[in-house]
Amino acid sequence: MLAIGMKSFGEAEVLELVEIPDPILHKGQVRVRVLATALNRADLLQRKGVYPPPQGESEILGLEMAGEVIEIGEGVDEWRIGELVCALLPGGGYAEQVVVPAGMLAKIPDHMTAVEAAAIPEVFLTAYSNLVWLGSIKSHDEVLIHAGASGVGTASIQLVRVLGGHSYVTVGAKEKLDFCLQLGAKDGVNYKESSFLEQVTKWTSGNGVNIVMDFIGAPYLLDNLKSLAMDGKLIVIGTMGGADATHLPMGLLLGRRLQILGTALRSRSLTQKIDLTKEFWQFATPLFEKGALKPIIDRVFPLKEAAAAHRYMESNQNIGKIVLSVEN
Amino acid sequence: MLAIGMKSFGEAEVLELVEIPDPILHKGQVRVRVLATALNRADLLQRKGVYPPPQGESEILGLEMAGEVIEIGEGVDEWRIGELVCALLPGGGYAEQVVVPAGMLAKIPDHMTAVEAAAIPEVFLTAYSNLVWLGSIKSHDEVLIHAGASGVGTASIQLVRVLGGHSYVTVGAKEKLDFCLQLGAKDGVNYKESSFLEQVTKWTSGNGVNIVMDFIGAPYLLDNLKSLAMDGKLIVIGTMGGADATHLPMGLLLGRRLQILGTALRSRSLTQKIDLTKEFWQFATPLFEKGALKPIIDRVFPLKEAAAAHRYMESNQNIGKIVLSVEN
Repeated sequence: MLAIGMKSFGEAEVLELVEIPDPILHKGQVRVRVLATALNRADLLQRKGVYPPPQGESEILGLEMAGEVIEIGEGVDEWRIGELVCALLPGGGYAEQVVVPAGMLAKIPDHMTAVEAAAIPEVFLTAYSNLVWLGSIKSHDEVLIHAGASGVGTASIQLVRVLGGHSYVTVGAKEKLDFCLQLGAKDGVNYKESSFLEQVTKWTSGNGVNIVMDFIGAPYLLDNLKSLAMDGKLIVIGTMGGADATHLPMGLLLGRRLQILGTALRSRSLTQKIDLTKEFWQFATPLFEKGALKPIIDRVFPLKEAAAAHRYMESNQNIGKIVLSVEN
Repeated sequence: MLAIGMKSFGEAEVLELVEIPDPILHKGQVRVRVLATALNRADLLQRKGVYPPPQGESEILGLEMAGEVIEIGEGVDEWRIGELVCALLPGGGYAEQVVVPAGMLAKIPDHMTAVEAAAIPEVFLTAYSNLVWLGSIKSHDEVLIHAGASGVGTASIQLVRVLGGHSYVTVGAKEKLDFCLQLGAKDGVNYKESSFLEQVTKWTSGNGVNIVMDFIGAPYLLDNLKSLAMDGKLIVIGTMGGADATHLPMGLLLGRRLQILGTALRSRSLTQKIDLTKEFWQFATPLFEKGALKPIIDRVFPLKEAAAAHRYMESNQNIGKIVLSVEN
């Protein structure tokens, strides 16, 4: 099959279309012809050699896909050849085929294309696990979402809305803010122009938010904690601005009973991922089908242009997901 | 009634027996003749003026008591005069009487004295809320308990045991370690002699513990985090060694999906405290009655010697609780 390989770790140019053997189908797995896969920030890190795949998993990039079932492994009885499915992957998505444990697959919602479905798993499952599992979000909760126009950001804004909460976002450009407000964010701030802590204080009349979803890490730690209300939760899913914080005021943690929750989807066990997949799609399929939730896609590149897609993500222009179409 | 008052904030000497008006019984409350109260570290801080009581609560020290019901407020039908009860208090325990919301009271277990019962609420409810509510402790979980011989430490060791887990402790003296091992701790380390991180690594074959219960704060933060296994939880209930941490490696939080949970019992809402009280005593009463759990009392002082009791706590010699007997 064709897949995107790497000669070495490095910049986007290392990505190239290569011919490699089809993956081997094991018991309990399903072979899927990939119709679309999508980019994640983690792909950029893996390409640079600083975020290796979990042991035993494909070296090929690609943490999610949508496609068509083309072969059923031994012991699998819940899928049929020809069904359209999507899934989180531990890797291997930038390819014409993947093999996936049957429990990880979800049926693509009615009237949705594979390109749209490929934009869902990573960002929506990340947002759902953070807001629902870790954040225990309740109706009327207020949530600060950094990088509101990112894939996880746009999924989070929508989930907060359908779960009855209110979201505020930080973004780096006016058109991103407008987009977030259209998606359902209550308000937002361009972090290049104002302090988000000051804005949160205004928006919440000094009470703070119940949940902060952060990708930035160390540079935001202090203001994130100060943005939280009593029993507030800071959910850290990235450290794009740096990982080594130099000040943690622990008195604030005790005084407001704050929680700092580090998390990552990729390193979770297969059982946890299957539980999450089933719970999410049971909740979300009807919402996608009636349009209350939607995948947000910025741009679609053909698989062979993966390098261009990476460069585009690195330029931080995208609103929502960057998808690779494999039907070419 | 008699109570322990303070002329001013300061050292133990400021505590003195004074005559003050009996507290006023409101609707939904019960008046209790206090038979015993107990010391908490927070009392020392409140005495120094650095830990004020919640707004509207008694200025008198004392966060727990056991005693006899002597008057029933309007709207209360679950208690009878003469019943022996104990409770967490927002303050006011160093006195001959307290008034308590009916839902906060628990019946003293059979065959237990008031002095014993007064040693239970703060430490056992703290340990229970941390291990069960915040820590979601499971059978076979491994728990590192700092200050193992303290009140919360000795309660935690016992709760971990009856909940099917394994505890390791840090202590500052050999006799404290021996006591913790007798109570059910699996192993322990004198922090004056060895690094607890090294010991945890040995005890858990490098896997780390599932929960750390910490009172020390900033100086232990880094080693506490490094002591945790995947999905481990650092529960911070005190910052006795300092509150301003100067290094938080957020990559470790993400890599191991760690959680830092700041908490405090005193600031919780009345509803939460009532829920906790009911849940704890339903779980624990039969265990106290059959001896599987026991209050650990180091020494009993008469109420009028509160100053001496404070000095004794400040000397860090105690194993378990320091109780003030009010029947004098």
